[in-house]
Amino acid sequence: MLITSLENKKIKKYASLKNNKIRKKEGLFLVEGMHLLKEAYDSGILVDILLLDGEELSFSYPGEITYVTGDILKKISNLTNYSSVIGVCKIKKNSEIMGNHLLILDDVGDPGNVGTIIRSSKAFDVDTIIFSTNSVDIYNDKVLRSTQGMLFHMNILYADLEIVLPELKEKGYEILGTDVHHGEDVRDVKVDKYALVMGNEGHGVRESIKALCDKNLYIKMNKDCESLNVAVATSILLYELNRGKNE
Amino acid sequence: MLITSLENKKIKKYASLKNNKIRKKEGLFLVEGMHLLKEAYDSGILVDILLLDGEELSFSYPGEITYVTGDILKKISNLTNYSSVIGVCKIKKNSEIMGNHLLILDDVGDPGNVGTIIRSSKAFDVDTIIFSTNSVDIYNDKVLRSTQGMLFHMNILYADLEIVLPELKEKGYEILGTDVHHGEDVRDVKVDKYALVMGNEGHGVRESIKALCDKNLYIKMNKDCESLNVAVATSILLYELNRGKNE
Repeated sequence: MLITSLENKKIKKYASLKNNKIRKKEGLFLVEGMHLLKEAYDSGILVDILLLDGEELSFSYPGEITYVTGDILKKISNLTNYSSVIGVCKIKKNSEIMGNHLLILDDVGDPGNVGTIIRSSKAFDVDTIIFSTNSVDIYNDKVLRSTQGMLFHMNILYADLEIVLPELKEKGYEILGTDVHHGEDVRDVKVDKYALVMGNEGHGVRESIKALCDKNLYIKMNKDCESLNVAVATSILLYELNRGKNE
Repeated sequence: MLITSLENKKIKKYASLKNNKIRKKEGLFLVEGMHLLKEAYDSGILVDILLLDGEELSFSYPGEITYVTGDILKKISNLTNYSSVIGVCKIKKNSEIMGNHLLILDDVGDPGNVGTIIRSSKAFDVDTIIFSTNSVDIYNDKVLRSTQGMLFHMNILYADLEIVLPELKEKGYEILGTDVHHGEDVRDVKVDKYALVMGNEGHGVRESIKALCDKNLYIKMNKDCESLNVAVATSILLYELNRGKNE
């Protein structure tokens, strides 16, 4: 199929998916570029492809492709230099908590940080990421780009942390917070079943959530440096907690 | 002094410092917000303060303060929600290479990544950062914000890497690159005097620079994950190279 009109009903619907509320209502989100498209296809969530007329996919795709004009891609894209392909994907239903290695994000706010954390979580064998209900939407285009497709390989859910954390304690997960002044050096901590809690860039973890932590960790660093970027800190903690396990 | 006119000559000059070329020509750059202002002051590079009329500094400052209107701050600021204080700072002259722990950035492009890397470099005891001549301007406001002020505590210079790296080899620095397929696990590498080379987000380290590396490192990670964000990868490598040293 070839669509050339910016007023086409399907095109208008897809363009509206740049809005978080409409994504939630429709249960759909967009991915841009061949790499993310392929990752989405491999994960079985791809429902439509908009491809610049005259271009080809880099992989074999059995479904029908919607060919479109550059103006249409420009209208739907979030990028200044729009990609030659945009995929429409379905949002997965909230899943269940799985595995022994959990990461809990309490209102981490920056989409780039969230995407980077999802990417590192896959790298260092996190089984499930739990976002607080007020967290950034993971189908935001900046989050998606920063994950480099790892979002589609990660078990993710949103939950009320004040309800979930006590349940995790009951199930034997050690709840790990962070404390730059009074924490334990992460190099000395050995734990098999954990939920690592990381907080917002500006104000950290909420007090009500902090109170639920069994242990606080810190990363040894130069005394002139107060803290690390939250995506870096999360990645180093996950790397270190996983360090002995993948020799 | 109180300035209320957007047409004031000094205000127009400061507003023009949002442009990289003018920053270089004038040898000046801007910092926004009290935290960065204080860091700049402590580093002895602050030359003027623009403060919203009626507000106060959070620290004692012996010099003269220029009080201004919100409209003036809005004109000079890079932020949607402009800060109540902007500092004008002088750019330091290119310094000399110091210390045994060097980080080399070959065209790392994203300002947020560069700022995050500068912050982590301070945390993990890098002595000097050397940027390739085509790298992002470190006085870019996004870089500055991401460093959280650590820029002012770091020895930084720009250089032609094809000239500098052979000189570093002569001086006994081990040149460390990265290679996800054929590298050595960073956990097994012990080296006291090194220059770690990290490359651009998209195309990595240039081939001509790669050829100068003595050894390539990698970070062990889940096989489904191809790579990490460059700021995360740099931070973990620096953390690991520094790991035995700060017990």
